[in-house]
Amino acid sequence: MRDDDPAVGDLSESAVLARILSRVGAAPEAIVGPGDDAAVLRDAGPVVATTDTLVHGPDFRLAWSSGFDLGWKAAAVNLADIAAMGARPTALLVALTMPDDTRIGFVEALAEGLRAACDSLAPGCAVAGGDLTVSPTLTVAVTALGSLDGRPAVRRSEARAGDTVALAGDAGVAARGLAVLFDRFRDAAGTPVAVDRSLLDAAEQTALDRQLRPEPPLAAGVAAARAGATAMMDVSDGLALDAGRLAAASGVGLDLDTEMIGGDPRWSISGGEDHALLATFPPGDRLPSAFRPIGRVRAADGVPVRVDGRPHRGRGGWDPYRDWDAQRG
Amino acid sequence: MRDDDPAVGDLSESAVLARILSRVGAAPEAIVGPGDDAAVLRDAGPVVATTDTLVHGPDFRLAWSSGFDLGWKAAAVNLADIAAMGARPTALLVALTMPDDTRIGFVEALAEGLRAACDSLAPGCAVAGGDLTVSPTLTVAVTALGSLDGRPAVRRSEARAGDTVALAGDAGVAARGLAVLFDRFRDAAGTPVAVDRSLLDAAEQTALDRQLRPEPPLAAGVAAARAGATAMMDVSDGLALDAGRLAAASGVGLDLDTEMIGGDPRWSISGGEDHALLATFPPGDRLPSAFRPIGRVRAADGVPVRVDGRPHRGRGGWDPYRDWDAQRG
Repeated sequence: MRDDDPAVGDLSESAVLARILSRVGAAPEAIVGPGDDAAVLRDAGPVVATTDTLVHGPDFRLAWSSGFDLGWKAAAVNLADIAAMGARPTALLVALTMPDDTRIGFVEALAEGLRAACDSLAPGCAVAGGDLTVSPTLTVAVTALGSLDGRPAVRRSEARAGDTVALAGDAGVAARGLAVLFDRFRDAAGTPVAVDRSLLDAAEQTALDRQLRPEPPLAAGVAAARAGATAMMDVSDGLALDAGRLAAASGVGLDLDTEMIGGDPRWSISGGEDHALLATFPPGDRLPSAFRPIGRVRAADGVPVRVDGRPHRGRGGWDPYRDWDAQRG
Repeated sequence: MRDDDPAVGDLSESAVLARILSRVGAAPEAIVGPGDDAAVLRDAGPVVATTDTLVHGPDFRLAWSSGFDLGWKAAAVNLADIAAMGARPTALLVALTMPDDTRIGFVEALAEGLRAACDSLAPGCAVAGGDLTVSPTLTVAVTALGSLDGRPAVRRSEARAGDTVALAGDAGVAARGLAVLFDRFRDAAGTPVAVDRSLLDAAEQTALDRQLRPEPPLAAGVAAARAGATAMMDVSDGLALDAGRLAAASGVGLDLDTEMIGGDPRWSISGGEDHALLATFPPGDRLPSAFRPIGRVRAADGVPVRVDGRPHRGRGGWDPYRDWDAQRG
């Protein structure tokens, strides 16, 4: 027992909550914040809402992610889904399920990571409510809410043949960071061990940072909506795979160009978790500054996605967590 | 392996999702429903939002709860928090974390339970989005959203001395049902066993039903708001305990009368999970039909809650799950 960092099971729920609330900051969009039955958010037109859960084992390992990293990532991946609708994130609800022996210092760092991600990626958005539950498995379920401020939502289903395909953000960097973790920071038995950054070169360190604390270009979502994007989605599972989903939803085909995408094509086409924004714009329109053109929308012809002229086949990503013993590390 | 009921780990995520979506029905308040990055809800003024997670072990046992029960309860407990703000539930987001060997039939029943609870307790509300993740521990994290339709939220902090304290719904019935489960449906080693309803009398069967599929009087929440309720909350942890929270938030004291509450005081004062609505109304005002008077608000005097004239002390509830091996059943 470490007296300076008690376990959550040794504290009352209200004590744990107080430690969290003092760290997540106030939610400017909340008329009613934490402490009542539910949060109440200011009226700002139609509400955009999404939820995504990070589970210890399949989605992260405590040997590799700090509490701050986990809070940041849980916020960032949900904020990206709001941005991908062309909306402005307004508030998060955070449901934590934690083993009794989770250290309060870890929970505090997680709260700080949630706040830092909001402040950095979506200023004005903050935690407005949540829930704490005991569980054998640590999970962070975040619901993000957003406002369209009177604009229509940018769906993934309205891309048209001739549109420019554009990308804001990294492609494949976070996936390279995941490979660094799996390749370099496991012991002989395959169990994750703590990261020693001094063993990594600058590119590897950047990739690791993006894997643990992704930095999706969230403001680009609203910018794309304002610029008339016809379709948009966030790239969570890999560019080619997600492009195929956009193509299917819109009933079109997409041609992508690896040189325009940039980076190493071994990562940029199939790597997920960067949460870049993939969007389509009417042909000839000037793109918002965060976006670079990476291809063209064409009529459907049975091949959803071509990369450098060749049909893209297969899932397009790998998911080492899923193929790996979920109980270790 | 049961071919007629495959495990979720043997199906693709999209196949699992399709089975769920065919069962949860359409969400009438959703402009954009499942299938995009986020749901978009019709503009209906300030948004009320809450989240609550049910975790296998601490919150439910599969030996006792069917998939349908679990879906129903996960919806009901969240819908109650929306109603307790005086709001009309509009949509649910549902994040499931499930072991790979979870049967698809269980997941389908869970989806049907979510829909049935919405249809029965909050018509017009439905599932508008969600998330699926693999986890060693089955959890159901629901976010409920609601609309105030132009009314202010009814908080728990505005009760005034002289107000009538009123209750809509059961007090202690669900807790009695939990005791039935713990007392009658565990084997000699304490492990949960399947419920045999034929062993129960009518009152026990009702109590069991309310524990597994609570029926909070959700329409009473909007009725209370319209009638001018000064404060309101849902009773999730026990009447006296939650009354103490309302008293603390409002800076007042509450006097409760067990005869007016009704039922067996051994359960009605301390039993949780009925998700009844506890509200206060200006003195002399006619109560909405779902509410019965159960006491009076008085000025704060150092005793938050008196029951039949005697100070209520202690937590006021018991939580057998928490004191019990979380790995069994």
